[in-house]
Amino acid sequence: MALGEFDLIAKYFARPVPRAVLGGGDDCALLQPTPGMQWALSTDALVEGRHFLSTVPPDALGHKSLAVNLSDLAACGAKPVAFTLSLTLPRVDEPFLAGFAEGLYLLADAHDIELVGGDTTAGPLNIGITVMGEVPPGQALRRGGARAGDELWVSGRLGDARLALEAFRGQVVLSGEAFDDVRRAMERPQPRVALGLALRGIATAAIDLSDGLVGDLGHVLRASGVGATLRLADIPHGAHVAACTEAQRRTCLLAGGDDYELLFAAPAGAHARVRDAGARAGVPVTCIGTLDAEAGLRVVDARGAPVAPTERAFDHFLSA
Amino acid sequence: MALGEFDLIAKYFARPVPRAVLGGGDDCALLQPTPGMQWALSTDALVEGRHFLSTVPPDALGHKSLAVNLSDLAACGAKPVAFTLSLTLPRVDEPFLAGFAEGLYLLADAHDIELVGGDTTAGPLNIGITVMGEVPPGQALRRGGARAGDELWVSGRLGDARLALEAFRGQVVLSGEAFDDVRRAMERPQPRVALGLALRGIATAAIDLSDGLVGDLGHVLRASGVGATLRLADIPHGAHVAACTEAQRRTCLLAGGDDYELLFAAPAGAHARVRDAGARAGVPVTCIGTLDAEAGLRVVDARGAPVAPTERAFDHFLSA
Repeated sequence: MALGEFDLIAKYFARPVPRAVLGGGDDCALLQPTPGMQWALSTDALVEGRHFLSTVPPDALGHKSLAVNLSDLAACGAKPVAFTLSLTLPRVDEPFLAGFAEGLYLLADAHDIELVGGDTTAGPLNIGITVMGEVPPGQALRRGGARAGDELWVSGRLGDARLALEAFRGQVVLSGEAFDDVRRAMERPQPRVALGLALRGIATAAIDLSDGLVGDLGHVLRASGVGATLRLADIPHGAHVAACTEAQRRTCLLAGGDDYELLFAAPAGAHARVRDAGARAGVPVTCIGTLDAEAGLRVVDARGAPVAPTERAFDHFLSA
Repeated sequence: MALGEFDLIAKYFARPVPRAVLGGGDDCALLQPTPGMQWALSTDALVEGRHFLSTVPPDALGHKSLAVNLSDLAACGAKPVAFTLSLTLPRVDEPFLAGFAEGLYLLADAHDIELVGGDTTAGPLNIGITVMGEVPPGQALRRGGARAGDELWVSGRLGDARLALEAFRGQVVLSGEAFDDVRRAMERPQPRVALGLALRGIATAAIDLSDGLVGDLGHVLRASGVGATLRLADIPHGAHVAACTEAQRRTCLLAGGDDYELLFAAPAGAHARVRDAGARAGVPVTCIGTLDAEAGLRVVDARGAPVAPTERAFDHFLSA
């Protein structure tokens, strides 16, 4: 990219950074922390084929690149402040850059955060974002705080992103409208930042769903030293997932990935406060199970009968 | 990378993070800022062919990936605190990872900083690092503070990294010993963190040399609204660059790139304080020119006669 690099950054990404003491364009960005707050940091790179398909529109990719990082802050109950962008591109592609920047900034503006630094490099497409947020000491939501007896909750609805992926792969056939719906879930996930903030002091543990419910729940269970019973019939999903075969529906719900909803635990006595936090954040929250002293995950159907034991066993598309 | 990802992170990168409130493995890392300090942030991705050659040993790559980011903090006069790593790898390559982690941590330990978060993804090799440092409000070194009459300084010696690149390209032939020397400069640059700290309150502007002296000086001149006269004969270099043809030597010194030395300005009256700062940091510092009220860059030879006018004109290898 060499000589064009600086022009490129300026053209698409240079904007005023009123909150940063010094924004992009110097060697470092400078930020003034709010006194008494802790910094929460998360970093995620997005790579074609793993995090997005080549068919993704550039503005959706800009949105999703920031969204998946904000989702990590949401899972910690941190308030987003700023982010950096490291963009590796095969070539200077102006329509791509214009669309990418538009999607990125639309979401950044919605969360009132600033791009404070970044670089662009020539190479295979790779989008690296580091987000920074603030949280009062001791109030961050972690993976390891869940206790036996806690209820297990999830935000929004699950499975649409996985269904979209399978539609792209040709494993399922959807109507045009259904495809548009689930594609939107996959390409434009909404990070649950407001819910994460509302759950401070209520949730005992939280994680965002990026790798699938069973896999991500496993991280919480291991970190917290508890087991869980998950009620398959209670996992919230939309009409398109409901219309799948039972096996495919299980895959979408249990091994979905890319939902970017929050999975969290809270004491049973806080049930009403969790509902209230969801209402304040404007996000549906659903109780889908309980945490147990007995290690391991038990998935049960509507009659309480066990479903399947392992994560791999939930993935029915691969063997379809 | 899917199922192996978490094991991989744990095996090579999981270490205690005593200073972080919460380290890698949760959704976010949590850091407690030092009261009253500003945060300095910088992010850089390294890509094969642009930032390193395929011949680089893994430990040197681990070193360099962190070094180029620390160099940005050095150029701001910020004290490094922590960093995140986003590693995209074509496949799980254990010897590579072991070497990479060794080189990375050796440099991290030398600067007493912690890896507080990261992710690994399958895809074309891409190494994204974001570094965080601290600086007292108002004391960060910037690009835009240089004034006419200031002296222009550079740390260390220039050109070895470029000479190594040309040796790899077959444009120059070096003895084995000479090749080892300049290759070390290219693959294991030493970020001038101690010098950056020592220059707080002395330097009026600073930048690290990643794209070549003329190019990076241009950023300082534009940001500061000044011009400069650069004395070619005074630019510090080693015996191997000295042994080049005159044209090649000019290229190495003026359009070198990858030196990761600090280029900085300071008032002429602070000459002795700059020398003292270099001595305290254990880094040679050399005055190589002056900043002028007249815009533009003038490069002069030992007799004060003008050399060549533009950056491209200094790159003699491309047309060799």
